[in-house]
Amino acid sequence: MPSINRPTLLLDRNKLNSNIEMMSRKAKSHSLLFRPHFKTHQSALIADSFKDHGVHTATVSSLSMANYFIQNGWTDLTVAIPHNPLETPLLNTFPVGLSIGLLVDHPETVLHLDKNVSRLQTIWIKIDTGAQRCGVVWNDEENLSLLAATIKRSARLKLTGLLTHAGHSYAAKNKEAVLAVHKDQIERMNFSSRFLESLGCSDLTLSIGDTPSCRLAHDFKDIDEIRPGNFVFFDVDQLNRHVCGWGEIAVVVVCPIIGVYPKRRQMVIHGGAVHLSKEFRPLKDGIHSFGLPVLLDQHSWSAPLNANLTSLSQEHGVIQFFDSSFSSFKVGDSIGILPIHSCLTADLHRHYMDMDGILLPKRRSGD
Amino acid sequence: MPSINRPTLLLDRNKLNSNIEMMSRKAKSHSLLFRPHFKTHQSALIADSFKDHGVHTATVSSLSMANYFIQNGWTDLTVAIPHNPLETPLLNTFPVGLSIGLLVDHPETVLHLDKNVSRLQTIWIKIDTGAQRCGVVWNDEENLSLLAATIKRSARLKLTGLLTHAGHSYAAKNKEAVLAVHKDQIERMNFSSRFLESLGCSDLTLSIGDTPSCRLAHDFKDIDEIRPGNFVFFDVDQLNRHVCGWGEIAVVVVCPIIGVYPKRRQMVIHGGAVHLSKEFRPLKDGIHSFGLPVLLDQHSWSAPLNANLTSLSQEHGVIQFFDSSFSSFKVGDSIGILPIHSCLTADLHRHYMDMDGILLPKRRSGD
Repeated sequence: MPSINRPTLLLDRNKLNSNIEMMSRKAKSHSLLFRPHFKTHQSALIADSFKDHGVHTATVSSLSMANYFIQNGWTDLTVAIPHNPLETPLLNTFPVGLSIGLLVDHPETVLHLDKNVSRLQTIWIKIDTGAQRCGVVWNDEENLSLLAATIKRSARLKLTGLLTHAGHSYAAKNKEAVLAVHKDQIERMNFSSRFLESLGCSDLTLSIGDTPSCRLAHDFKDIDEIRPGNFVFFDVDQLNRHVCGWGEIAVVVVCPIIGVYPKRRQMVIHGGAVHLSKEFRPLKDGIHSFGLPVLLDQHSWSAPLNANLTSLSQEHGVIQFFDSSFSSFKVGDSIGILPIHSCLTADLHRHYMDMDGILLPKRRSGD
Repeated sequence: MPSINRPTLLLDRNKLNSNIEMMSRKAKSHSLLFRPHFKTHQSALIADSFKDHGVHTATVSSLSMANYFIQNGWTDLTVAIPHNPLETPLLNTFPVGLSIGLLVDHPETVLHLDKNVSRLQTIWIKIDTGAQRCGVVWNDEENLSLLAATIKRSARLKLTGLLTHAGHSYAAKNKEAVLAVHKDQIERMNFSSRFLESLGCSDLTLSIGDTPSCRLAHDFKDIDEIRPGNFVFFDVDQLNRHVCGWGEIAVVVVCPIIGVYPKRRQMVIHGGAVHLSKEFRPLKDGIHSFGLPVLLDQHSWSAPLNANLTSLSQEHGVIQFFDSSFSSFKVGDSIGILPIHSCLTADLHRHYMDMDGILLPKRRSGD
């Protein structure tokens, strides 16, 4: 356990490597192309460790993030957010010879790209398989036809496949509910694909993305590619949905204890929304959990304590204990907090610190 | 309106200056020392504009933030979080001749400081006037006596006063409720102060901090100092509690529109939790609001539209419209989002952009 004196994002590289190994093996065993989403870790060093598993394709969530990974040697990226026309000039500054896939779900965006891209551009149609965030609704034949026809008329755009993100699997409460969402997305992707093939779009690659499905499912009928991201670290949200075990969560925020309040069985930590994010999980009686406290040890950390981080200000957090394990802590000690949503927590930090105290630099959004 | 192509934190300097002028005038009119909290803006440039109002004292929420403002010429700071003993070595690296006030509420922290600080150290006792986060409970005479006696035994520590943050005023639903919290905190601070004076602690400065009370109250009996921070920008949370008007909110996150979905009267923006934070305000039926959409114009922005940012992923946001104003937007336009909690939103960005397109650099936590 390295010496830490302020809120710090600690990474257990053994858990990270084992998570990468697990998902990589799963992709191989189902003959799926593995295109991991790098928005979770945003680190060129962690990205490099995928190469040991033969992975040279990745997913990002913005053109700025694409830019970071291009500068770090990645040449085959999908930008998994509907293309933002205002950033086309940035796209045109990327070096030649890369394969950058863009998502579209509006004919207007296709027309814009046709007019403004400076070279042949790979395009994915984003399909809404039930998440109701973005994408053409899977059985909306009118809009699917219109979009495909608009793409086909462009000499600069090449339709490579259909891509979905079943984000609603993150709202599923257990394994069965995740698998039900997954079954739907497979059927719906196959429906959209058959429909577009009937219009003459051939060799469409089918890509799905959510960590819960990719972890739990065993049937990937006709799917070609998976793009999970969160699995590198997992988090309390995935633990709660039985997508991972606590021993697979690979990051923890180490927080110095600055107050103990025995009468209310509470402890105050230096560690707030700017270190963890305000992502929460509802508990009973209107109470929210902003993370699960764990004991730090020399090599890693314990199972979650019988306690919860129930309040989070900008730099303070309040931990409520439900048993007497409380009494073993004092001001000047540190405690670990497993994040509710590791992607958002990681984005708040400039570095990971590994268990040997080595800092691994990373990108942050908003810079 | 400057040209913006990705999620950007836009600052209306007219509103900012008017907010600073308003609070500065209020402090003067009540003969209160003004020690604004800089955790909201974290910008040396914005901090400098306080000097035009004769303000040379400020508040920060960590020793790292103190370090940033010290490097930018600030010499009189209160670190308004119970002192983290693990950071005492950082404290000891600060240049001599500064006035850095530390908060304590545990005798153990006092003993630690007595043993480890390298020079005379100014100390505030943190009082809990009802927020139940940290501090000695205002009428806990046993712990107040113990803490005061422990400080008094140290030749290196000098007790300067009592400090509270009535954080529960942020849970108040309207002006009357804020004023009730304020009345309590004044009475309670006076109780603690009289009690400690009866033990021989003289000339105690009394400091209060929350923006709602500082904005709305007109009775500051025996209070010497105010430390509001959020008022520089205000936000939807303050608007909702009638602490400010929408025309006083000084920051907005500009987000490119990447999808319009007329059937569900929704729009998808490039702008997510990494640009706004997941701070939310509960609406009806379990729906949350993560920000209020506004129309951008050349000089500033409109009143909130009849719409709400109801869903927020890492980089996507979904805006639900409640009327037909929806139809005037298209992909490639941008929209503004007033933040729920401006302190957390500002922390996610490296710069403010003003209405002339000039970037103002700032600090971020977690770097």
